[in-house]
Order: sequence, then structure tokens, then C-alpha cells
Amino acid sequence: MADQLQRPYAAAACLLLLQYLTGGISMSIPDPKYREALIKLETSMQTGGQLVLNDAERRLDSLLFTMKQKEIARPDFPPTMHFFKARHLIRTSPIFNLLKKMPKGGALHVHDFSMVDVEWLVKNVTYRPQCFMCVTDKQSIRFIFSSQLPKPLPHCSPWTLLENLRAKMINITDLDNSIMGNLTLFTDEDPETVYPSQDVVWDRFEQTFLALWGLVTYAPVFRDYYYQGLTQFYMDNVMYLELRALLPEIYELDGSTHDAAWTLKTYQEITRQFTADHPDFYGARIIFTVHRGVNITTMKGVVEKAVKLRRDFTDVMAGFDLVGREDRGRPLWYFREALSLPKNVILPFFFHAGETDLEGTEVDQNLLDALLFNTSRIGHGFALPRHPVAKNISRKRGVALEVCPISNQVLKLVNDMRNHPAAALMLENHPMVISSDDPAMFGACGLSYDFYEAFVGFGGLRSNLGTLKQLAMNSIKYSSLTPEQQKKALALWQRRWDEFVSNNVF
Amino acid sequence: MADQLQRPYAAAACLLLLQYLTGGISMSIPDPKYREALIKLETSMQTGGQLVLNDAERRLDSLLFTMKQKEIARPDFPPTMHFFKARHLIRTSPIFNLLKKMPKGGALHVHDFSMVDVEWLVKNVTYRPQCFMCVTDKQSIRFIFSSQLPKPLPHCSPWTLLENLRAKMINITDLDNSIMGNLTLFTDEDPETVYPSQDVVWDRFEQTFLALWGLVTYAPVFRDYYYQGLTQFYMDNVMYLELRALLPEIYELDGSTHDAAWTLKTYQEITRQFTADHPDFYGARIIFTVHRGVNITTMKGVVEKAVKLRRDFTDVMAGFDLVGREDRGRPLWYFREALSLPKNVILPFFFHAGETDLEGTEVDQNLLDALLFNTSRIGHGFALPRHPVAKNISRKRGVALEVCPISNQVLKLVNDMRNHPAAALMLENHPMVISSDDPAMFGACGLSYDFYEAFVGFGGLRSNLGTLKQLAMNSIKYSSLTPEQQKKALALWQRRWDEFVSNNVF
Ligand SMILES: [Zn+2]
Ligand SMILES: [Zn+2]
Repeated sequence: MADQLQRPYAAAACLLLLQYLTGGISMSIPDPKYREALIKLETSMQTGGQLVLNDAERRLDSLLFTMKQKEIARPDFPPTMHFFKARHLIRTSPIFNLLKKMPKGGALHVHDFSMVDVEWLVKNVTYRPQCFMCVTDKQSIRFIFSSQLPKPLPHCSPWTLLENLRAKMINITDLDNSIMGNLTLFTDEDPETVYPSQDVVWDRFEQTFLALWGLVTYAPVFRDYYYQGLTQFYMDNVMYLELRALLPEIYELDGSTHDAAWTLKTYQEITRQFTADHPDFYGARIIFTVHRGVNITTMKGVVEKAVKLRRDFTDVMAGFDLVGREDRGRPLWYFREALSLPKNVILPFFFHAGETDLEGTEVDQNLLDALLFNTSRIGHGFALPRHPVAKNISRKRGVALEVCPISNQVLKLVNDMRNHPAAALMLENHPMVISSDDPAMFGACGLSYDFYEAFVGFGGLRSNLGTLKQLAMNSIKYSSLTPEQQKKALALWQRRWDEFVSNNVF
Repeated sequence: MADQLQRPYAAAACLLLLQYLTGGISMSIPDPKYREALIKLETSMQTGGQLVLNDAERRLDSLLFTMKQKEIARPDFPPTMHFFKARHLIRTSPIFNLLKKMPKGGALHVHDFSMVDVEWLVKNVTYRPQCFMCVTDKQSIRFIFSSQLPKPLPHCSPWTLLENLRAKMINITDLDNSIMGNLTLFTDEDPETVYPSQDVVWDRFEQTFLALWGLVTYAPVFRDYYYQGLTQFYMDNVMYLELRALLPEIYELDGSTHDAAWTLKTYQEITRQFTADHPDFYGARIIFTVHRGVNITTMKGVVEKAVKLRRDFTDVMAGFDLVGREDRGRPLWYFREALSLPKNVILPFFFHAGETDLEGTEVDQNLLDALLFNTSRIGHGFALPRHPVAKNISRKRGVALEVCPISNQVLKLVNDMRNHPAAALMLENHPMVISSDDPAMFGACGLSYDFYEAFVGFGGLRSNLGTLKQLAMNSIKYSSLTPEQQKKALALWQRRWDEFVSNNVF
């Protein structure tokens, strides 16, 4: 890594601090020099605080500082608000517009069916031929593509061909908007009213997921969806992706289906095609996921399957993870036998853990257990500051958190982003990357919105261009890529970074 | 201190952790013994985690654990809600009722004019003879006691004798309720609607303060108010108080006034009287405070006065502090010359610092500066986790935070108490005490509500009776009392603690 440490400075400052702590320095007015040194020491401890910026970077950094001062002075400072209310404000923020252009490295925590904005799904996918829709008892919707009228679903209205439905409607825009509203949590209404509790928002999350399902698991859509997803991240200046994917059965118009190996292979092919089309995109890898609601027997089977897939598709398959609401699912320790592998078997874990505020419960042990199972990274780790031992292990071993600010806010773990636990972690350079979890579900896109919340919300006035640079580099350093691949990816990123910096200083 | 450390256990656990961190332990299923040890290690790291409980305490602890499990399972779990909405739920909580009975030690961060519930002010004080009231342009109210019609206040209606006003009213209850509403921030309406921003709530805070002013600075009321304040803390099983007091001019019915020395002496006398009436109350000390809005010249004069008062009233005067909204006031560093004392002058500081979310600003340096000025404790320290250097110094030097959860929530620094930054600090046994800041202003009383939020909200299921015991002991350990006084206070507390424990196990 290109970590250019300001070692001499840091060492001197540390000495000062030590002297100060042990009472070696005593004065009536604190010496402004010491004070200055301690302030600098603190700044140097944050993520990126050890990076030495070049001239152009320093100029861009001053620019950013001025922008941030203005942003923080706003009475409607976006990180204090729910993202659904803040989005339109963020969109006009000059910092956000800079962040969009910034090469952000990799997105290491994104799920398979929430990569692409829902407008594309409605305007493109649902307009394809043979798209059937039905409405469930709970007023959610379901889709299927089929060459003939599909068998009715339980607790659902009869299937209607969307083409026919649209032909009969006077106002198609209303229909399309209503479909769109069913495919995302985003709403223009007051989010506190629509989603008063974690239970309500998670229930809607799961319904929305089921609504998407029939659209995105249709083979032709599946391919296009993934290509479109890569495009959206690429357009947001993300160069690499680690996608958590369920590898579900993918179906064809005649009802025939493909297995997980086919799906993984398809991911591989589309990634290759996309990288060929966009040579400055580095690539993507898959983290195979299963729902944490399954039983032990199923889990054993899935882990075996994961081991096999990892062996057969080593270059595209990064590892394994469990998904679904942690608070309601089974804790990792429940699956300990299934997750224990013989010494000679390789299956890297990328466990979601600590996406909870149920402190001290079974589920709250997931953080420690993920580390005991040698997880490569931690998905979220929202509860980590409340686990000093786990925090220590994560720090010492370099097990990075995948911090997804907007996801945590929408799923009601935190309100004001400045109170996000990762704010303090970022100020002490805890290993972390910024990611977006399910951007389409939250009305976000790519990584820029989450970078905005982290940079402006967590970091206050102190986080700077070095912080952003380090966060981007972290996404390569903590990726599942081999050291050689990382070197290549970093070089690619560095070229784009230098371009970005020189394009934005005047 | 009666810190009975479980040293042998802690050492073994630390060794385990070290082995684990350095990769000395490797296994396919993590060994349940190691896992157990790490979990225990983590629990032992929290506030009180090193205390060894006796049999009766252990039984009470089990009881508490069961209560907490029930409490956390509630869909309307109080720490997730605004205190104004949660108060009636907390009142019926069995944990809260236990906390009320628990001897909590000292209240180290309480302000002079928010000790007594406003009902007493209205029902007792405003019914006294010669109480005049007027209404300001901003619909706040002002009071004065006077033997004759007082001179009119600018931007205020003419003065009315309350006695006359009440005689003319049909519905006195409405009048009294309206007065009461003017003397506290507490409201039955939706707090988010009434106080949409920090600016609004602080503005109301300051108006409310001015409304109280004329009532509590009237000499006869001043004495009774303080006695009544001590009574309310005593009834809440608080045995000691460090009161931040402005020592303002106190007036008599004829308009004559008393100076700060008189006021301090009055505090001393009433405290002695109260302690004589209640031998199991240990006493009170005063931290002289000035508003941070003053200019440098005024500050210099006030510091000189503080030094003199401290010399003349060493046993009752603990030290000095600045008050008022940190975000809008002058930072400590602005007053550095005024706050710098010759070596032979003693004036302990108890600075408010870090009661802000304006990270990286001038004001945000107050935390470090308070420590550079050798502050004895830190008022709030809400921003401390975002200042790793300051955090280090505070920890190593044992400079305790005075954590006031409800104050921070009402003044809009945090919503869900589980996200309060002190939650993580408590789980790593950072030096801290729990206090209530301005309980009457927030509709609270004594310390029990704030203990509830800390114990149930910050601590989740893991904090236990040891945590509560340690927090109570911390309030003596980190008080301004001399070592001998602390020993006496601790013995007094320990007797009451043992009684409390044996009264509550069956
Ligand atoms: Zn996720
Ligand atoms: Zn205060």
C-alpha cells in the first residue's frame, strides 16, 4: 500500500502526549505549541491522517474545507436528517458533486438485487413482453415472466399480463409510479410516519424484496440487471465490486431453471464483458449468501455447496455470508458446526455482524463470533464500539468494517449521522470501508451518497481529502483480491485519482 | 476505594486475548471455553465489571436481569423514545422503582435553578404575597417580589400582582398550568414538533431560565428553594450534591440586594441545616459558574472573585466553571489568559466541554482545552469519543465525565439513548458519573431518571448491579471531597447500599 507515513512527526507528537499524560509538562497557560501539537496529533490519528498530500491534493483539500464550512452552517444540514428528506439537498451540494466524480475504489458491501435504480426496472423490465403481475393480500406485488398464464400464487390476485393492464389504463404513469413505490423503501412522505419502527421497516424491506424477485431472477433480465448494476456503480466512479449474491434459481420463459453454478458463471461472464467494454473498471467478485433463517441441516448443505463453488470458481467467488435481519435470525453461534471447516478447506467468511442495537443478547455476540470464525471483514459492525474486546481484535487483525451509513439510518439504527458509531471509529482510523448495502432500496445509487454521509456527517470539519483517499484505498486493501491484484487495482485507481485531483483544482 | 478486583481472572483472560490476537490460538470450531472467556473478559471491562458481588447482591442482580429482559422486549422500550414521551412509561417500570430506592451517591452536575419541580414553584412560591408577574413580547413571563409596584420592564406588559389576577380569574387551574408550562421545557405535546431544532430548544431554555429568575433570586424563596432542592435529591436517595451556581444578586422585598459572598454563605448555612435535619445526607459543595458569553475583562474579574471566594469558603466552594450554550458561546481558549492562574493560586475547574456536535470547530476544542487547563471533571463530554487524544488523557488521568443523558436528549444531541456516546464509554469503564444537569427543566427529578437511561439504555442487557454500584461509588471517588471526606461519605453510602440490597432480595 502507498501508505506514506509521517512517522517522524507522529513519533514526536506521541512523545508529547506521553509527557503530558505522565505529568511531565506543567504550565499555567497551556503552551500553544503543545496544544497545537496535540490537536495535530489527534487529526493525524483519523482515517487518512497519516497520508502526506501533494500540492494539488492540498489545494483541493482547502477547497473542500471551505465547502464543508458552508455546508455545516446550513440550518438544514443534511447528515442530521433522514436520507429520504435529505436526498434532494445532498444532490445540490457541491461536496456531493465532487464525491460523485471522485474515484472511490471498490464497493465491498452491496447486495445482488438492489444495485439498479427502480426506475430502470419499471421503465425497462416491466415493459418487456410476457410480464405478469399480481397483488398480494398485504398490497405488495409479485411478478413473473412466462410464455403462458402462470399458476396462481396463494394469497394473491390472479395474474395479469402487464401489457394488457397498461392497454386498459388511462393513466399509465400512476400505475408505473405505484409499481415503483412497491420496489423501493424510498418515499416522499414523512419516513418517520411511514416507518415508525424497525419491525415495520424490515417487514416492508422483505416485501419489497419479494416484489423484485420475479423480475430480477428471469434469466434475460438477470443478465441485463447485473450489467446495468455494474454500469451504475461505474458511472458513480466505483471501479470494483464485491457483490453479496444469493445465487438463486434463475428461470427462463418456459419455466425451466438454472442452478447456482450457472448463475455464478453468468456473473463471471457478464463481469468479463463489462470489463472488456470498460477497461478502467477492475472487476467484480461474488460473496455467496444464504438467509440466516434456514435450519442447521440446510446450512450444512449450503456451506458444502459454497466450498464446492469456491473451488470451481476461485477467481470470481470471494467467500460466504449469511443475510437477513440479524435481530430476528439465528446467531452465528447457532450454526457453529456448519460453519466449522476442516483445516484444508478454504472458504473465506464475510459475515454481517453487529447490525443491531439489542445489546447483550445472543445476536449481539455475532461480532465476537464472526471474528472467532476468522471473518475477513465485518458487514456493518454497527455495535462494535460496545464490544471493546471485539473492537480490539478487529483493529489488531485488520478486519475491516463495511460501514453503510444510509442503510443503518433507513433501517432505524441511527437518526443523526453524526451519532453513527463509525464516526468515532473513523476518527481513530479503525479499519473500515464505506459501502451502500442496498442502494436502490434506499433511493440511493452507487457509493457517493454514503461517502457524503461519512465524510460530511461522521467526519465533521476534521475529515479531509486524506480521509477520502484512505477510504478509497481501504476498499482495495481490505478487498478479497490477491496482493498482486490489489497492486494492479491500486495503480489503476491511482491514475484516476491523480486525474480527478488535477481536474478539480484551479 | 473498595474496588475489589478480580485480578487473577482478568489476567488469565487478558492472556487469552493476547494469544488470540497474535494468532496463537487457531481452531476450526472456536473452542467454547475461549469464547466464554472472551465474552467474560468483555463484560469485566465495563463500568463495575471488576467488582465482586456478595451473595445478596448476586441475587438482586439476577432479579434485575430478568426485569431488564422484560423491559427490552417492550415494543415501546423507553430509552428509544424522547424522555417527554417516555416519562410515564419509565414511572411504571419496576427497574425505575428499584433505582429510585437505590442509594446513588452524589449528583455532581446539577445547576442552581433547576433543582426543584415547577409544581412547587407555582403552588408554593407564586402564591406568596407581593408576587408580581408580567408577560414579555415573546410570550414568556417574568416575576418579581416587591413591596410596591415595580418599575415596568422593557418589552413587557405592566406588572400585575398575582394575587389580584387570581382573584379576578374564574379558572385558576388554567392560569397555574400556563405558568407552570412557562417554567419548564417539559410538554405533553410532541417534543419534535415543539422543539424542531437545537436553536429553538435552547432559545426556550433561556427564556424559561429568565422566567424562573425573579422567583428564585428572592431571598426568602432562594433559601426555601435550595432546601427544597436538597430535599428532592435526598428523597431520590442522593446523599451529596455539587451544585453549579451563578451566585447572583439575591434581592429582598424592599429591593435591597446581597452579594455573591452572602449567597455562598447562605448555601453553606442551608446545607448545614439540611444535614442536621437529615444526618444520612452527606452535604453539598458549590461550583461557582459564569456565563460563557461575557467578555475577557469581565471573565478576569470573575476569576479573581472566584479565587477569593474559594479562599474564604474553602470547605463549601469546590471550584469554577463556565455555563451557557457551548455552540454559541466563546471557547475556553478565548479566555486562556483569564483562566491561567499563578502557580500558588488554587481554583479547581469543572468545565463543561464537548456538549456539541459541531465536530472540528473552535468550540469542539473545548474538550482538549479543558484537560490542558487541568479540569477536575468534564461536564457532559458528549463529543469525547470523537477526540481520541482527549479521551486518552481523560482516561489516564481519571478525569471523569459527568454524563447527563436526558439533558443531551432534550437539547437534541441524541435521539435513541442506545446511541449515546457514553454507552460505549460505559462498556469500557471510562471514568464517568451520571447526573441530571437541569432536572426540573426536563420534567425529571433527582438522579433516578438519568440512571434509568444509563442503566437500561446505554448498558443493554450487559450492565448489571456491579455497574450501578460502581457508578454510585464513582460519584464519591470523582467528587471534589478530600480523601478523608470521601472515606466518610463512602462508609455512609456503603451502609445504605447494604440496606438497599438486603431490603430488595427475597
Ligand atoms: Zn447487507
Ligand atoms: Zn450543565
